[in-house]
Amino acid sequence: MNETLRALLASVKSGEVPVEEGVDRIRNLAFEDLGYATVDHHRVLRRGFPEVVLAEGKTTAQVVGIVGSLLGRESGALVTRASEEVARALLDAHAGGDWNDTARTLLWGGAPNPKAPGRIVVVSAGTADLPVAEEAVVTAAAFGNEVDRLQDVGVAGIHRLLGQGERLRGADAIVVVAGMEGALASVVGGLSDVPVIAVPTSTGYGASFGGVAALLAMLNSCAAGVTVVNIDNGFGGGYAASLVCRRLAKERAK
Amino acid sequence: MNETLRALLASVKSGEVPVEEGVDRIRNLAFEDLGYATVDHHRVLRRGFPEVVLAEGKTTAQVVGIVGSLLGRESGALVTRASEEVARALLDAHAGGDWNDTARTLLWGGAPNPKAPGRIVVVSAGTADLPVAEEAVVTAAAFGNEVDRLQDVGVAGIHRLLGQGERLRGADAIVVVAGMEGALASVVGGLSDVPVIAVPTSTGYGASFGGVAALLAMLNSCAAGVTVVNIDNGFGGGYAASLVCRRLAKERAK
Amino acid sequence: MNETLRALLASVKSGEVPVEEGVDRIRNLAFEDLGYATVDHHRVLRRGFPEVVLAEGKTTAQVVGIVGSLLGRESGALVTRASEEVARALLDAHAGGDWNDTARTLLWGGAPNPKAPGRIVVVSAGTADLPVAEEAVVTAAAFGNEVDRLQDVGVAGIHRLLGQGERLRGADAIVVVAGMEGALASVVGGLSDVPVIAVPTSTGYGASFGGVAALLAMLNSCAAGVTVVNIDNGFGGGYAASLVCRRLAKERAK
Amino acid sequence: MNETLRALLASVKSGEVPVEEGVDRIRNLAFEDLGYATVDHHRVLRRGFPEVVLAEGKTTAQVVGIVGSLLGRESGALVTRASEEVARALLDAHAGGDWNDTARTLLWGGAPNPKAPGRIVVVSAGTADLPVAEEAVVTAAAFGNEVDRLQDVGVAGIHRLLGQGERLRGADAIVVVAGMEGALASVVGGLSDVPVIAVPTSTGYGASFGGVAALLAMLNSCAAGVTVVNIDNGFGGGYAASLVCRRLAKERAK
Amino acid sequence: MNETLRALLASVKSGEVPVEEGVDRIRNLAFEDLGYATVDHHRVLRRGFPEVVLAEGKTTAQVVGIVGSLLGRESGALVTRASEEVARALLDAHAGGDWNDTARTLLWGGAPNPKAPGRIVVVSAGTADLPVAEEAVVTAAAFGNEVDRLQDVGVAGIHRLLGQGERLRGADAIVVVAGMEGALASVVGGLSDVPVIAVPTSTGYGASFGGVAALLAMLNSCAAGVTVVNIDNGFGGGYAASLVCRRLAKERAK
Amino acid sequence: MNETLRALLASVKSGEVPVEEGVDRIRNLAFEDLGYATVDHHRVLRRGFPEVVLAEGKTTAQVVGIVGSLLGRESGALVTRASEEVARALLDAHAGGDWNDTARTLLWGGAPNPKAPGRIVVVSAGTADLPVAEEAVVTAAAFGNEVDRLQDVGVAGIHRLLGQGERLRGADAIVVVAGMEGALASVVGGLSDVPVIAVPTSTGYGASFGGVAALLAMLNSCAAGVTVVNIDNGFGGGYAASLVCRRLAKERAK
Amino acid sequence: MNETLRALLASVKSGEVPVEEGVDRIRNLAFEDLGYATVDHHRVLRRGFPEVVLAEGKTTAQVVGIVGSLLGRESGALVTRASEEVARALLDAHAGGDWNDTARTLLWGGAPNPKAPGRIVVVSAGTADLPVAEEAVVTAAAFGNEVDRLQDVGVAGIHRLLGQGERLRGADAIVVVAGMEGALASVVGGLSDVPVIAVPTSTGYGASFGGVAALLAMLNSCAAGVTVVNIDNGFGGGYAASLVCRRLAKERAK
Amino acid sequence: MNETLRALLASVKSGEVPVEEGVDRIRNLAFEDLGYATVDHHRVLRRGFPEVVLAEGKTTAQVVGIVGSLLGRESGALVTRASEEVARALLDAHAGGDWNDTARTLLWGGAPNPKAPGRIVVVSAGTADLPVAEEAVVTAAAFGNEVDRLQDVGVAGIHRLLGQGERLRGADAIVVVAGMEGALASVVGGLSDVPVIAVPTSTGYGASFGGVAALLAMLNSCAAGVTVVNIDNGFGGGYAASLVCRRLAKERAK
Repeated sequence: MNETLRALLASVKSGEVPVEEGVDRIRNLAFEDLGYATVDHHRVLRRGFPEVVLAEGKTTAQVVGIVGSLLGRESGALVTRASEEVARALLDAHAGGDWNDTARTLLWGGAPNPKAPGRIVVVSAGTADLPVAEEAVVTAAAFGNEVDRLQDVGVAGIHRLLGQGERLRGADAIVVVAGMEGALASVVGGLSDVPVIAVPTSTGYGASFGGVAALLAMLNSCAAGVTVVNIDNGFGGGYAASLVCRRLAKERAK
Repeated sequence: MNETLRALLASVKSGEVPVEEGVDRIRNLAFEDLGYATVDHHRVLRRGFPEVVLAEGKTTAQVVGIVGSLLGRESGALVTRASEEVARALLDAHAGGDWNDTARTLLWGGAPNPKAPGRIVVVSAGTADLPVAEEAVVTAAAFGNEVDRLQDVGVAGIHRLLGQGERLRGADAIVVVAGMEGALASVVGGLSDVPVIAVPTSTGYGASFGGVAALLAMLNSCAAGVTVVNIDNGFGGGYAASLVCRRLAKERAK
Repeated sequence: MNETLRALLASVKSGEVPVEEGVDRIRNLAFEDLGYATVDHHRVLRRGFPEVVLAEGKTTAQVVGIVGSLLGRESGALVTRASEEVARALLDAHAGGDWNDTARTLLWGGAPNPKAPGRIVVVSAGTADLPVAEEAVVTAAAFGNEVDRLQDVGVAGIHRLLGQGERLRGADAIVVVAGMEGALASVVGGLSDVPVIAVPTSTGYGASFGGVAALLAMLNSCAAGVTVVNIDNGFGGGYAASLVCRRLAKERAK
Repeated sequence: MNETLRALLASVKSGEVPVEEGVDRIRNLAFEDLGYATVDHHRVLRRGFPEVVLAEGKTTAQVVGIVGSLLGRESGALVTRASEEVARALLDAHAGGDWNDTARTLLWGGAPNPKAPGRIVVVSAGTADLPVAEEAVVTAAAFGNEVDRLQDVGVAGIHRLLGQGERLRGADAIVVVAGMEGALASVVGGLSDVPVIAVPTSTGYGASFGGVAALLAMLNSCAAGVTVVNIDNGFGGGYAASLVCRRLAKERAK
Repeated sequence: MNETLRALLASVKSGEVPVEEGVDRIRNLAFEDLGYATVDHHRVLRRGFPEVVLAEGKTTAQVVGIVGSLLGRESGALVTRASEEVARALLDAHAGGDWNDTARTLLWGGAPNPKAPGRIVVVSAGTADLPVAEEAVVTAAAFGNEVDRLQDVGVAGIHRLLGQGERLRGADAIVVVAGMEGALASVVGGLSDVPVIAVPTSTGYGASFGGVAALLAMLNSCAAGVTVVNIDNGFGGGYAASLVCRRLAKERAK
Repeated sequence: MNETLRALLASVKSGEVPVEEGVDRIRNLAFEDLGYATVDHHRVLRRGFPEVVLAEGKTTAQVVGIVGSLLGRESGALVTRASEEVARALLDAHAGGDWNDTARTLLWGGAPNPKAPGRIVVVSAGTADLPVAEEAVVTAAAFGNEVDRLQDVGVAGIHRLLGQGERLRGADAIVVVAGMEGALASVVGGLSDVPVIAVPTSTGYGASFGGVAALLAMLNSCAAGVTVVNIDNGFGGGYAASLVCRRLAKERAK
Repeated sequence: MNETLRALLASVKSGEVPVEEGVDRIRNLAFEDLGYATVDHHRVLRRGFPEVVLAEGKTTAQVVGIVGSLLGRESGALVTRASEEVARALLDAHAGGDWNDTARTLLWGGAPNPKAPGRIVVVSAGTADLPVAEEAVVTAAAFGNEVDRLQDVGVAGIHRLLGQGERLRGADAIVVVAGMEGALASVVGGLSDVPVIAVPTSTGYGASFGGVAALLAMLNSCAAGVTVVNIDNGFGGGYAASLVCRRLAKERAK
Repeated sequence: MNETLRALLASVKSGEVPVEEGVDRIRNLAFEDLGYATVDHHRVLRRGFPEVVLAEGKTTAQVVGIVGSLLGRESGALVTRASEEVARALLDAHAGGDWNDTARTLLWGGAPNPKAPGRIVVVSAGTADLPVAEEAVVTAAAFGNEVDRLQDVGVAGIHRLLGQGERLRGADAIVVVAGMEGALASVVGGLSDVPVIAVPTSTGYGASFGGVAALLAMLNSCAAGVTVVNIDNGFGGGYAASLVCRRLAKERAK
């Protein structure tokens, strides 16, 4: 577009095209010709953050290529849902990656900001929910937050959770990870006054329908203010919590 | 059947009917002719209990007729899910009925046994769950149990429930009535060591899908020993709890 | 519990009960005996906020009674999902209520804090989504936030939305309200770097399945950081956005 | 935006701002400031066509207002899914509307182009499918097409359909409207070589699940080239068929 | 039971057992002791027919054992849904079995009656439906019927089916096997006047949901008289058709 | 078509058109021109039977019109799913109709053949299932069968059913009508050796999902040979049973 | 049929059969005897096009056989959804095939017509959607169209898509391939005025339910004129777009 | 907390803190500081019982570790849903385990109490239901109950069940395990007067939807008092039955 625009402005300058007509002509330029890469605030959003690649559904070669491309221009990268095969290929191709085999994530760079934007508590219900919880933890940490894990505090033994109230109350945002009946989100939501992001997991069998039971429970939470992400989406939970903290960090930075 | 059989045996004894023919005749008595009423343990089960009629799906005339038939031979009757119209017709037709307009039940007789078979706690989550909870209460009481109501103790304010632990611990059986995310069943299940029967309700909207969210949550309860009945089936919850207590009553009566 | 505790402390004071034994006894007091009303941080959470009552599923008499009870001890109250009948009864019973017939809300008090905790943009896709959007607006405003409405910017005419980027970028939190295919949440999520709370609506017909299509779309949003509440839950969206802003307000107040 | 742009161009003209800097500044203007109403190709798309308003989910006042606004600047308007109440209000408010009480549509203007862009056959399975079929017919006609109705040709009497092959073969696009098992789409798809748009209807009961059975059948059609719109979306079917014909009309106009 | 009863009656006759005691004893014979094997019309039903074993869900050892037991007292046996592993084990263990690797059935005995009870046409839509269709064919043949296969006559090429009307019209019962949109059942149902049993198959992908699309289509068939069995239940289809024919055979045998 | 064909044959006869060309011309006549009304075996099927009109989804005027048209050329007609309003209009318009307000059917003519084609038993589980059962009864009777009703024999009191074994065993075909868990179909299927057609009803609430629970139970029946029709489709059940009997009647007539 | 018909016409000609009787006899000839292979317009439809075989659900031997049969009488063939095993077997058996391992297609012949019938743009949202998009591309190209790929333009970065408006506007038909929330179809639909065929993909996890989320979103698109095919049905999308273009090509050829 | 509390009590003792203030301070201590491990009545519940570990969803190492930890402080342990790999690892690591390869359970200790708390009958429908039934048996036995197995008594051959009425009637609680249509629960429920816990299994195919058909049937049981656990949850069934018996045992022990 630059050429078109340059020529037009030259004509305006020369008087060949009057100002009013120039206004009209520019308005009629389809915006797609404006080269909006420069206003891609996604880049802004992620500035200082590692980029994120979902490995699932991509070939190993595609993931290796995308990460290579990212590391060529960014200081870090985060890959989620990597199989062991993908992980091995990535570690071979790009030095310095940190493989978390519970979360199935790889992280390059991503050292937390010296001044953490916020404190995120990731609460999980049972042992089988740990991979999803860990994905949330890795994500939240990769975006520079201080992360506290509160594990194995399912509601069947409610006192385990109640005994950790202090840690919940110190959070800027809470991620609750639970499968089966997903009741933990409601109980935590009732105990805290910060944004609670619920991550249903596919833990369970039979009528859990791969996490649907927990998802529905969380959407119907009687605790106001609980919001929900997709089943097993630990990344989404950690990312949404990071957005909350990011806002706080801006405020603190003032 | 006794008469038929007695006459037949008398004929066998007298030689009027040979043995082989007697064998044949008895074999050919359809078992339905054997007077299985005497082994109809449904009657046994309900002995001393009022009969139960589900009004929904029946015409007013049908309900009035069935109740009339019951009251002709039993000392009591319980009608559930009666509309106001049905209730009025029943009260007009059959004196002495007790109409509970929250539970939508009518009860004739059903005075609790002087010696209550058991103590049932009906726990409910919110105001909108009360009609279902009350149906469980009426049912459990109609079967002679002492019933304790624990209301408005949803998990978003978990302390309301925890503050009533003593009452929970005194129960022989617990009925938990909750809609929305149905988390109450898991929390109560984790706090008690008696049979917990969970009744999901259709309270909620959107993704509660008429009680499906609560139903699934309860089926996936992480608290072992929780069993579930149909959505809004307060009668079923109260009845199942009564069965538990009935067993105890027999034992106590020994 | 006070009596028990008072007697025990008196015994400690008198030396009748040694300190160590006192520690043990208190630890063995069931927590339910502690009268936790005083640690109900729900009240803390809502301090300065009006209380919220969901009218749906309650009788008119129940809603009137609950609101009366609230207004007796709080300076404000918010009722959601009120029918016209409930609204009339409430306005008759309790002076000063503000009835919003699009949102179907009644508000007493709820004047925004002079110093608004945050700025929330409520984006909605079409005219039929306005009632839900308005519920979010009323809720967010009742909690003291500055609220900006961005209406009728469905994705079929993407330019209507793109033309309002400036308003989106000024938000502390965004609520996106959309039915049908719910695509608006993803597009807004991609354009902003603050928490985006998506509210699916039941707008649509046929295979929208009462909002399920929009709900699923939002849960599967390719824009990271979008979180979701229940179908038609404008209150939940406004409340969750308020929680984000509340955290900011605390920071700003430092 | 005009002012900003005008001032900038004036500065370019005066030499105050060099051309290169002008290019940069314009590129950095957020596109939303460009007043994109002028590039709303939706208007282009609909040029010569009446505008379309879905009445469902809008109040009567809203529909009357929107139609008034449209008729103020366009020569025609089409309202779909109008209740009788809405229809009466519209006819009172805006003269010249044509009310089709089977299709529940109102049309102002919409006289077909003298030179019809195409020939569309709307095939329907049973009497109960007629309202949806008629909505497709009205839509297709409003966009200037010649429309042929083929009614009551359900597959249980396959010969009724086969006997009309000639009419099918003369079509530029076919809309198939069927509920229950929706088999008609596959049979028609197998008999024709033009685009077939299938519209499932909610005709049926029980396991038709409000049109889901027909919808799934159509999505799984063994006849390649069948595409599907939402349940009961006669408008969508007629509109999509019109798009096919519109393309042809452009070609013919060359 | 006969012996027990005979001895008892003999004792009654001899006076050894008084009549009243005889009445009691007979009443106390649980009906299960009455030797209801003799009224097990299942045996009657299957007389002359091979027994049927569903291999799926059983271990290889269990299947081998059950078939061994059957062949010890019957002249034939039919095993459905056998894996190749199960088939090999069965053929090793029990000589004379006939393995059909399309239908995944094994048959011992099952030679059709010289006088076939009926003529069954098994119509299938596509190549991928053949395994289910073949299971129906094997079942129907094992029960002594004459079976005609009509294959690859899906409705997208309706003439292939119409060209075989004569064969359809000669049937005593028709089994229609189809996946995807399952439209074939409606078309065949419309063309014939004998019982049509529809077998939906899991052929298809995506929104076929493992055969649900075809199942729903068949349940909603606009052709009256079509009845449906479970997805992929070729056995059930063949068996139900055999029941129809069996009735006819009885009539013919008169 | 007759004219075209007649002219062509005349030309063949006259030699104007040679035989080979005649063969070609006839083959090239689109079959739709052949006037296949004469091969409409639907008419054959229904010969001697009343025609059937589903009133649901049609306007009152449409139903009245269709019945008028039928009665003009047939001796009888059957209307199903008529509302009271439709019934009144029909009885006013067409004398001699027989209104069954349980089944919601109207029948003109339909006197059973003096020589009934078969004996059909309609078994139903509970009082609320009677409307659907009655629709099956009316349908089966309208097609000339002898129909036996076996009511209120739900499986919770299995002896009620077992006591009627003799009546079951005398059937040519059995229709089982049940809602809730639909278990009756399996039990009846296990007790009989004739075709059993299961009709799930929408009786029940909550997780019965409008009859889905019963539908699935019937499709998964462990009793081989049970086939299923749509939820609440009493007509379909009665019709399918009639088809079985019709076949028998033909055989008997030989 | 020819013989039958020839003999009949000869008799008409000879006068042996009168004209009227000839008319009757021909009308009574079942149409299936007319040898309608000659009016199989499917063949007409595909003339000049390669035939298409869905490999899924067929054995390798079956696919090899079918392709062999096709190549024996046609100049080309297209196989979709081939596994690598099937592909290898096909390439071994039939020379000249072109294997696309992203689309999993094999193509013989299929060289585009020198004069392309149309221009189709295949738009896809993410890397994981490429296999389905490629299937659409291969299909559209095999039918002779010019195909343009627009990849990785998901709505979370809406500018990537907006920047390609020119390419969209040059299309005769557009295929949109997207998984997850499927919002791309609505945005593209809003930006274009040609038929848009949406192909939902199973890309995603959890509540995407194997593509259902995208499917529902597309069916509920707020952009009028979007039509939908089955999940992952790239072939169907490419085929439907080809039908649109084919119509244009005929027009252009005039 | 002990330190805080100890210091506080010391201050009360010393008079430094008055009693009233001490009462207040303690009430204000968040309950989580009270170290509620000592009131974990879960331990109370399970006293004398082995602990239960669900192996599914945990790594082998995790299961081995948890069991090691349990056996270090308890006399027994029960592991459910162990794969063979997990079982081997456990048996290697911890001597004395009893592996049940049908139930897929491992049990350490768990010798029944000499005085059994109750008699539980586990009724199962078919051979394929045995693994789930056996899990219930192992669980019930591990908790000290006498367990009676009633196998292969599916409702298609109702006499097999009826013949075992005596055994049913001797039960304190009954567990019914059935897949497919799950009708067995209703029939057993109708025959007994003790609590019946229904366990749906995933036995079946097609429209059994992995056990959903049986689950829904059981939830809709027409036999009052039947309660339900999750699909394939044999453990839950056995555990709930144990809770019923445990209550009885307490009564008996009085």
